[in-house]
This record gives sequence, structure tokens and C-alpha cells, in this order.
Amino acid sequence: MKLLIVGGVAGGASAAARARRLAEDASIVLFERGPDVSFANCGLPYYVGGEIAERNKLLVVTRELLQSRFRLDVRVRSSVEAIDRSAKKVRVRDLASGREYEEAYDKLILAPGAAPLRPPIPGIDLPGVFTLRNLQDVDHIKDRVDHGVKRAAVVGAGFIGLELVENFVRRGIAVTVVELQDQVLPPFDKEMTTPLAEHLAAKGVSLLLGQSAEAFEQGPDDLTVVLKSGIRLTAQLVVLGVGVRPENKLAIDAGLQVGPRGGIRVNEHLQTTDPDIYAVGDAIEVKDFVTGEPTQVPLAGPANRQGRIAADHIFGWAARYRGTQGTAIVRVFDRTAAMTGASEKVLRRARRPYRKVYVHPTNHAGYYPGAEAMTIKLLFDPETGRVLGAQAVGGAGVDKRIDVLAMAIQAGMTVFNLEESELAYSPQYGSAKDPINMAGFVAAGLLRGDHPQVDVEVVLNDASDQPPLLVDVRTHQEFSRCHIPGAVNIPLDELRSRLEELPKGKKIAAYCQVGQRGYLATRILLQAGFPAVNIGGGYKTYQLFARK
Amino acid sequence: MKLLIVGGVAGGASAAARARRLAEDASIVLFERGPDVSFANCGLPYYVGGEIAERNKLLVVTRELLQSRFRLDVRVRSSVEAIDRSAKKVRVRDLASGREYEEAYDKLILAPGAAPLRPPIPGIDLPGVFTLRNLQDVDHIKDRVDHGVKRAAVVGAGFIGLELVENFVRRGIAVTVVELQDQVLPPFDKEMTTPLAEHLAAKGVSLLLGQSAEAFEQGPDDLTVVLKSGIRLTAQLVVLGVGVRPENKLAIDAGLQVGPRGGIRVNEHLQTTDPDIYAVGDAIEVKDFVTGEPTQVPLAGPANRQGRIAADHIFGWAARYRGTQGTAIVRVFDRTAAMTGASEKVLRRARRPYRKVYVHPTNHAGYYPGAEAMTIKLLFDPETGRVLGAQAVGGAGVDKRIDVLAMAIQAGMTVFNLEESELAYSPQYGSAKDPINMAGFVAAGLLRGDHPQVDVEVVLNDASDQPPLLVDVRTHQEFSRCHIPGAVNIPLDELRSRLEELPKGKKIAAYCQVGQRGYLATRILLQAGFPAVNIGGGYKTYQLFARK
Repeated sequence: MKLLIVGGVAGGASAAARARRLAEDASIVLFERGPDVSFANCGLPYYVGGEIAERNKLLVVTRELLQSRFRLDVRVRSSVEAIDRSAKKVRVRDLASGREYEEAYDKLILAPGAAPLRPPIPGIDLPGVFTLRNLQDVDHIKDRVDHGVKRAAVVGAGFIGLELVENFVRRGIAVTVVELQDQVLPPFDKEMTTPLAEHLAAKGVSLLLGQSAEAFEQGPDDLTVVLKSGIRLTAQLVVLGVGVRPENKLAIDAGLQVGPRGGIRVNEHLQTTDPDIYAVGDAIEVKDFVTGEPTQVPLAGPANRQGRIAADHIFGWAARYRGTQGTAIVRVFDRTAAMTGASEKVLRRARRPYRKVYVHPTNHAGYYPGAEAMTIKLLFDPETGRVLGAQAVGGAGVDKRIDVLAMAIQAGMTVFNLEESELAYSPQYGSAKDPINMAGFVAAGLLRGDHPQVDVEVVLNDASDQPPLLVDVRTHQEFSRCHIPGAVNIPLDELRSRLEELPKGKKIAAYCQVGQRGYLATRILLQAGFPAVNIGGGYKTYQLFARK
Repeated sequence: MKLLIVGGVAGGASAAARARRLAEDASIVLFERGPDVSFANCGLPYYVGGEIAERNKLLVVTRELLQSRFRLDVRVRSSVEAIDRSAKKVRVRDLASGREYEEAYDKLILAPGAAPLRPPIPGIDLPGVFTLRNLQDVDHIKDRVDHGVKRAAVVGAGFIGLELVENFVRRGIAVTVVELQDQVLPPFDKEMTTPLAEHLAAKGVSLLLGQSAEAFEQGPDDLTVVLKSGIRLTAQLVVLGVGVRPENKLAIDAGLQVGPRGGIRVNEHLQTTDPDIYAVGDAIEVKDFVTGEPTQVPLAGPANRQGRIAADHIFGWAARYRGTQGTAIVRVFDRTAAMTGASEKVLRRARRPYRKVYVHPTNHAGYYPGAEAMTIKLLFDPETGRVLGAQAVGGAGVDKRIDVLAMAIQAGMTVFNLEESELAYSPQYGSAKDPINMAGFVAAGLLRGDHPQVDVEVVLNDASDQPPLLVDVRTHQEFSRCHIPGAVNIPLDELRSRLEELPKGKKIAAYCQVGQRGYLATRILLQAGFPAVNIGGGYKTYQLFARK
């Protein structure tokens, strides 16, 4: 068996190592266009910022180790230029010498990754305008920073963009972020990013949302970023993080099918339309595990598992890729944002029915010092209660709850299962009713009907003649500090004795700070004959939508 | 509906609050023998140590709030002395006045909890010998500590015992721990507690394992703890944490069934043998979710959920308790130990077939600073791969992995599912191959047969004529530092070229530090025709068994 692998980072390196474990006698050649294999893409921003101090830490597995331990024929600075499918061979160009040669294969794995988008706007190729994909990119950016940058502009507020922002600030650089959408972290639902935008602002970062760059200009000392709105930003350094496109040229030239957004099409065994050619990683189109629709999700975890599965299938195992959930996480200064499964916008686009709840718990018992707040948004099927997606933003413990919910999605669990989850509790780690249980209680109460809830956007956008009466059941003090415009204040502990103040038959939307007192108020009102609902997630959820 | 609830802490208070939300018009009386309702049992040790500085933080929900907000008739210092099932009433004793009276019920929930065991040995009732259950106990212990304690003895190295140890050390007290079993934390498998015992020793704690107290003696200044072995310990304070017994007298006197270990018998709706009487919390016998056998698991999380379910069922919902997994966690100074599902000893006792693997990952990517080590033990069904139990010990991230595995157990997931889990990865939070994936890979490789493994105990206890040849595939340097006695050293990267040194046909047990290089070595050896196995979890697992 002769196995060629194109691309030596996450998916390619995983496939190669797995293949060797399965077949000592296979001839395995790993082609990598760049000078490095198996480096830590996800660590690059932290090398700029200095948290990762040594560059060689980013080299997860060296070329030497792959050669000595895995007996791989590793050829770096080698570009695979063409595939001859009928002859089953590839044409390789040695980038150092310029020499071209052919290499035959029995099986071929494509793991070329995805390239950062560089939109064709004037000045995009100026020397101060960077993208970040590999160690060479990071060397250039770090070199600039080390030589003194006072102002930087980051175009694109996605994962990589925000990680760079944090690291630039760490280096004392004033940063402006330009984002086309009206939110940071576009994979998240907008309201969930409200606390992040506020946190970025609190850290001194200038956010320009709903803005796009239309040109870069080189001045004597500085670059100028010209925005469509007319705003002109000065910076010594610009980094673009506006998305990636699959490296599909080799596949397309070879007549392999790609999807509408360019991802190489594969079946569940990760075979392309040519069964002797597999493709893995950021270059491929995958099945969205929740919606079942084709999508592209450039993430390291899935790429690694795909590499392994492709090797398994080549060597005769019945390996299948189950699709990608899109579990992702990012640290934004002192906050963590994480998600798994479908977002509300993805569900809406897929016309998939859903309901949602928000909870605002702390990561561990409130009676133990140091509890940190988080907000969890849970999306689920309105009929079965099956968990469809989750997002969380906050301090410590966000990663844990998203991982727990990632398992729930993988297993097809429902919100009723979340009520019953038995998670580890002692005061440093959780609560007797963990945030996961709480989300389950609220969602299950909504579906069972004993806890009628209304989404805060529905209340805010109610244009009917008969909008519900808003009843704020928090304390007088909480109410006087801030409340939803138009609300009346009847604190929960006074509600039973003040029911006669409420207009009979009128629809009531109750709310409190996070939803819990509003829930009890709703139960009291319903049982007293008032058509009442609770505004899900309370005032804290309202703030996610109302604050900009 | 008149609902009486006996016991006002976790299960009882949860039942009462839930009942009120379901039924505004119900008459709900909550009897509590002590002066406090709904306090944070799990926080008590940290009040002694001072991390929880204010006593009132431990009062999660006050009596006043339960009365005003939930309109509960809360009667503290009220002991329910007897149940007249035919007349459906209870006899209550007001402990302040001594007055006795009767109270009728439609439904009754028993949530009396469990009492710390006080074995009947001489001196057990001396004033310096304490147990820890409630705020009064903690007041007494803290008072002693505040008045100056130099030496304390903790009898019992379970969860509460070790939490007290940590807090005593925090207060500058020299602590000796006496434990009957030959390990700390008896619910864990012994080898998993090796790092904890070492950590306790490193913190200056004296551990006396396999020892028991047979008397306490009062001297002029100090107490003496007399051990069966003859050892005599001097201390100014002794705390017993040797287990609890269900408070079942009321139930037994009323003719309700209890299990062999005293837990009140309930059905899946948490009804006792009298369908109008429910029981919840530490006093009941529950179904072990993994083995299906009856057991007793005193934990706050399950107690809270049981209270909720009992109330739901009383008010007409089809609520069922699915059993208890036994998910538990404890911080021991700078380490965390957590478990979920069945331990190996429980599986062995239940004669349930299982296999196991150990992995020794770090909590996040090694290339990012601050990665902390952990050991995970995963137990699973040898046929289906279904996850049966897990234990983890280490630094940060232990709680997350156990919670993820708790979900896997709840959902009936297999080790093959763990291979495919998609968990949140960025360098601060995890790895592209998360510890959960790694555990899945190792376990699935074992079941599929492409990664033959042998348990280290099997190798160590091999008394056959033909024990396997131990091949240490770590580097020369690692080998020279320490190795399994009798092993020969062939570093992995030299293995392919030194195969002729190995005796043909002889069984080989390879190992490395954590199992990964040993796995590759095993693959090389197998494919070269040697009957080879990998010692699961490598030298690190060996150390868990070999160190005392």
C-alpha cells in the first residue's frame, strides 16, 4: 500500500500517524507546502502576545519525530500541483529547487486546509496588511509588533480576530476592530455577544460593527484603513480575519466534486467522488450534525478525528464520520464564549422549529467565595425537547457546561434528560442544582406548560392593540435602579396580597432578574386565574437584547 | 391538599418549594428538628477553615423567605415522633416547649436525612469528639478551633473527613487521619487515591491507613485516640467522619419497609410502601443507575431532585426517579478527585464484566502554559463498550471530564461514542484530542483488538512459568530514572532496528510513560510477528499500584 497525504498539519498529520499504526509495511508520504508539519495553529495568537514564549512550543510534533517514530516520508516545502486520477499519481513541485516529479499512489488523502480570505480591495497586498495561518505569518506579525506598533486594526471579529485583539492589547497596542456584521463572533447569536462587546470596550478596544474596509492606503509612517462609511483609521499594522476558503484547487482540477461554498464533497467515510481519494479537515464540506445540512466548519478537533477516520477506512475498518457539531470556544480577555450545535440563526435559516431558554447561573455554589456569573442559551425541539444547540458566555465554568451540552447533543438527549443529569457538586465546582439542571428545569417547564414563558423579543416587538401588562416582580430597589419601560412593580413577596390591583382577564408578562422569581409569580398568577407568562431569563436577558 | 414534609434541608426544602409552585392552594407544613432549614451542608467545612467567612452565607434560604415567598408553614425545632398511617396523621413534638400535638395529612414526605455514625466505643461521648452534620456541629468545632487547637485527629478519610483535614491545615492545625480501609476516599478504587495520599503527606498530614480507633480518653489537657494497633494519638479535637446511617426510625416504627442497610424503600415515584407517604434524600435506598442494584448514596444533588420528583408525583405529574449514578467530587488541597457511575470494586462485587483503561492527559494543550496533569480511569462493558464508570484525579479540568462522562453514562453512550465526542477546544480549555477522546481511543482500541492491552496488575501478579518479557520503550534517560523491575529498555525510536534482539515467539508486554508510545511499540511488534500487548496507562499507571 502506498499512501500519499497532501497537507501535514491537523488532519494530514493525524491520518499519517494513524496509518502507520495500522500498517507497518505501508509506504506513507506526507507532502507539506510550508516548512513545518503539525504545528499548533490555535496557539499562534498567544505567541504574538507572549503567553507562549518559545516558538518551538508551537511545533507539536517535529518532522524528525514523524520520520523516526512513524517512519513517514515527510517532504516539506513540497507542493502537490496536480492529480492524475486515471494513472493514480500526483505531480509534486519541490519549492526549494523548483524540480517537479511524479509520485504514484494507491490511496490519496487531501488535507490542504483552508486559506484566509483576502478580499480584492485596493491596498490588500500592502506589506503591513496581514493574515494569520501559519508560523511564517505569525513571525511577520510578531516581528512588526516587536519593532513597535502603537495602533493596530483587526478586520473581522471572529475567533482568530478576537484572539489577536486580546494579544495586541497585552502588548500595549491600541486596537480597533472592524466587523461587517452588527455583532462580534458571528457564529454566535447576536444577543449572546452583548456582554463580550461590552467587555472588549471595557478593555479599551474600539469596536466598529456593521462596518467594512474598502481600501488600505500606505502613508509615510502609517497605514490607513478606509471604511465604506468614510471612517479612516490609522494603524501601523492591519490583520484580516474575515474567514477562510477551502483549498480546493487541486480537487477541482482533478474533477472532484465540491459544494456550493467550495468545500470538497466527501461521503461518510470521507471519500471524495473518487473512492481512492479521501479528503479531511478545513477543506471539506461536512454534514451539520444537528440540521443534517452540508456545511463547512474549520475546526482542529474535527480535522484530527477526520484524519484518523480516513486512515481507518483505507486500512479496512468500517469507520464513519458522524458530522460536525461546531463545538467552539474562545477566551476574550477575562470572559469565555463557547457554543455547540446549532445557533438560533442557523435553525431559523434551516426553517427548523425550536424553542429557547436563557439561564443566568453562577459556576458554583453562591455561598462559596469566587462564584462567577454566566449566561447559557439553550435551543431545543418544541415537540420532543431534543437539545439542538447551546451557547454560553461568562467566567469560569463556561467550557464545562458547553462540553456537557455537546455530549447531550451527540447522544440525542432532551431537556427532560438535563433535568435529571447528575453532575459533580461540591461548592468549588458546581451547585446541587447545576446550571445544566437549571436550564433543563426551565426548558422542561416551558414544554410541559407548567411554566409558560415568552421570549423577551416577542414582548419588546409586540405591536398588537393589547400588549401584555408588564409586571416587574423584583424588589422596589431593583426596580428603581432600572426596569423594562412600561412595567409596573409588584415585588414577588407582595404579589399574593396585591392581586386585586391587577386588571382581571388582562394578559400579564411577569419578569424578575433572571427568571426564577418571575416563574413563581407566573405560577401564582395562573392559579389565581390571570393569563400570565414569564419573560424567559428575566431582566438579564432583556439587557442582552436592549443594550447595544 | 394538606402536605406534610419531615425535614427541611435539601430534599425536604426542594419538595416544599416545588409543591407550592404546583399548588397555590395546598396547605404545606415543613417540620425541621433543628433550628435551621435549607442550609448548605456541603459548605460547613469551609466555614471552619474560614474560606466561607460569614455564617449566614450557609443559610441558603431562610425560614422567613420560605414563609413569605412560598407561604410554607415552617416549624423548626419540631420533631415528628410518630406516624399514624390509618388515621393519616403525625405526632409532633415542639422541642422548645415540649408540647406534643397531632397534624393530619393527605400526603406525607419523609426527608429526615442521615445521621453521622458514632460507633459505640469508649469515650465516644467525650466533649472533644465531634461529628459534623449541621450548623450547631460546625459552631462547636469552630469554637474549639478558634480557641486554639494545635493537633486534631480526623477519624475517617471520606469526603467530609478530607474536607475537614484541608480546613484544619488551613487553620494551622497538625492533623492525623485514621482510616479503617487501606486507602483514602473509600468510594474510589484504591490505586486512584495514591496521588491523593501522596499529596496529603506533602501537605504535612499524617495518614494512618488500615487503622481504627478503639477508644478515646480524656487527659488533663488533651484527648488521646487509642488505635487497635496500639498507637496512641494526642489531639485537642477529634472529628469522626466514618459514614452515615439513614434516619429511618420514624419509617420503621410506622411499618414502612427499609432495605438491608437501613434505607427507606421507595418505588420509582419515591413512594414508600405506603403510597401516601414519600421519602427522599439521604434516608432512602435508591437504585444504582449502572448496576441496577439497591444502594444508598447520600448526595445533595440527588436529594434535591428527589424532592422535586416527589412533589411532582403528588400533584399528578408522571415523574420518575431514574436512579443515582453517584457522581461526586472533592477538592483535596490543590487536587481534585471526582467519580461517576460504578467503581471497579462495585463492578467486581456485582460480578459485572468490565474492562478498564487509564489515561494521563493534561487539562489543556501542552503548548499553552499552565497545563495541569490528571489521571482518568474509565470502566466499560467488554462487549458493548458502554461506559460504566469513571474516576479522575488531578488538577484543573477534572470536574469537567467527570461531568462529561456523567452525561455519557446517563445517555448509555459507549467508548466508541467518546472517540467521536466533539468538545470545546482552544488552548486554554482543552486539546484537539480532548482527554475524553483519548480515553475513548484507548478503550475502543482495546475492544476492537487493534490495541491489545494488559492491566498492570495482571503483569505484576503474573505467577506463571512464562511471564511476558517487559520491554520499556521510553528513552534511556527515563528508564535509568526508574522502571518496572525486570524490564529491558529498547526506546521506541530504536525498536524497529532492534527487533532481532527480542526472543521470537515470546510474549512481550511493552510500556512507556502513559501508554501512547507503548501503543505504537505494540503495533510495531504485532506486525513484526511478536505476540505483544501494551501495559495500559504505562509507567504512570504502574506507579499508582506500586507506590504505597
